[in-house]
Amino acid sequence: MTYCIGMLVDTGLVMLSDSRTNAGVDQVSTYRKMFTFVRPGERAMVLMSAGNLATTQAVVNLLTETKAAEPTEADDPGRTGSAATLLTADDMFDAARVVGSALREIYRRDAKALESQGHEFNASFILGGQIRGQLPRLFHIYSAGNFIEATTDTNYFQLGESKYGKPIIDRVISRSSSLSQAAKCALVSMDSTIRSNLSVGLPLDLAIIKRDECRLHTHLSIDGDNPYFSLIRRRWGEALQEVFSELPNPSW
Amino acid sequence: MTYCIGMLVDTGLVMLSDSRTNAGVDQVSTYRKMFTFVRPGERAMVLMSAGNLATTQAVVNLLTETKAAEPTEADDPGRTGSAATLLTADDMFDAARVVGSALREIYRRDAKALESQGHEFNASFILGGQIRGQLPRLFHIYSAGNFIEATTDTNYFQLGESKYGKPIIDRVISRSSSLSQAAKCALVSMDSTIRSNLSVGLPLDLAIIKRDECRLHTHLSIDGDNPYFSLIRRRWGEALQEVFSELPNPSW
Repeated sequence: MTYCIGMLVDTGLVMLSDSRTNAGVDQVSTYRKMFTFVRPGERAMVLMSAGNLATTQAVVNLLTETKAAEPTEADDPGRTGSAATLLTADDMFDAARVVGSALREIYRRDAKALESQGHEFNASFILGGQIRGQLPRLFHIYSAGNFIEATTDTNYFQLGESKYGKPIIDRVISRSSSLSQAAKCALVSMDSTIRSNLSVGLPLDLAIIKRDECRLHTHLSIDGDNPYFSLIRRRWGEALQEVFSELPNPSW
Repeated sequence: MTYCIGMLVDTGLVMLSDSRTNAGVDQVSTYRKMFTFVRPGERAMVLMSAGNLATTQAVVNLLTETKAAEPTEADDPGRTGSAATLLTADDMFDAARVVGSALREIYRRDAKALESQGHEFNASFILGGQIRGQLPRLFHIYSAGNFIEATTDTNYFQLGESKYGKPIIDRVISRSSSLSQAAKCALVSMDSTIRSNLSVGLPLDLAIIKRDECRLHTHLSIDGDNPYFSLIRRRWGEALQEVFSELPNPSW
């Protein structure tokens, strides 16, 4: 399984992913699920993946090839103008379309073979980033290559094992939260998920894009001995227990 | 969907269920999922259900019929002695077997017809209670009529939409928690679930069995205007936000 969170706030983007991949409990491995596409000062994008590892690796490979994943006429009837890659896309919507096209290309290659052996074609992505002179944007791209964009009302996306860590995000994060708050919340949400689900695990990859910097402000690998994450884990657990014990007991 | 929690602590049992039933978002109804079987001073049992409503209602109906759900030779080869109902079972293990047998009886009646129309046979139960002179016990009964029992290490069971509300239980409840703490925690867990999932809803049914009383110490219907639940919802939300803002921000 997987847990990834992408959050869009007024001052930028926070992206956090775990790194556990499993095919049954006796085949557990570590694979990074975060990929970055950066031209410093000009554009910065972060892509996170969930689903079948062979599929997501094939998509990412296609995206990093030079002429990768040009939307074809079939993908995008009536489209004119030059084909794009993540590093040449005109805007973030176009970039999301590049990822969707790559997914469709891999679908054409693999889906029939997967299906013939009883496997579903299963891969999804979160793409966040900013291109100079435009606004930061965040997209959730589905297996079929279609996608939705984060808005003021819904300013985050999750992939994978999303339920354990959702209540805390819903309670504390909004579009006006700071990048620090968003990063802190993403880590608390990840901690709750890791505690409840064996298939989500360390190390984590964290990327922060500060609005209008168009580069990766922060790009960290966080392991069990990261001092800040350790502190958050410990204090959050202690504080929850304190708050819980301070709530009045029922009189029944 | 459904959310039910049963907790076994040293001093008794707490059982909490929601009441929302839905077949699609445009067919939402209120059905109680908690059923009680009590002979005051002699035995008290609480049963909570999840799954196909027609199936769980048929099981409960069978359990409330006079000679309901006697384990048959097929269910229980080699069994001797008199047949039991929930109100005559010798011990709680036997009572769990009575529920399992009722499930198997409904399976025999309905599963083929359900399957022929593409529906799965889907029903599960939590049964908690105490019989005088014995210990309080808690069981999770699966669709196949088999079941597991709560232990010191794992002292609670959930049915239905369990993930949103699991982290808080894992953090604050153990076998030595008081009944008040367990009831408070069940309500906080239910609140997190209701906030995150439209298919879980009020009113709630709460039952508390105090060890060795062998009756329902508390049996309440909790609606949106219940003062204690309103207080818990408000204060827990506020406290989480306070605790979160008091956690140090990262320096990245």
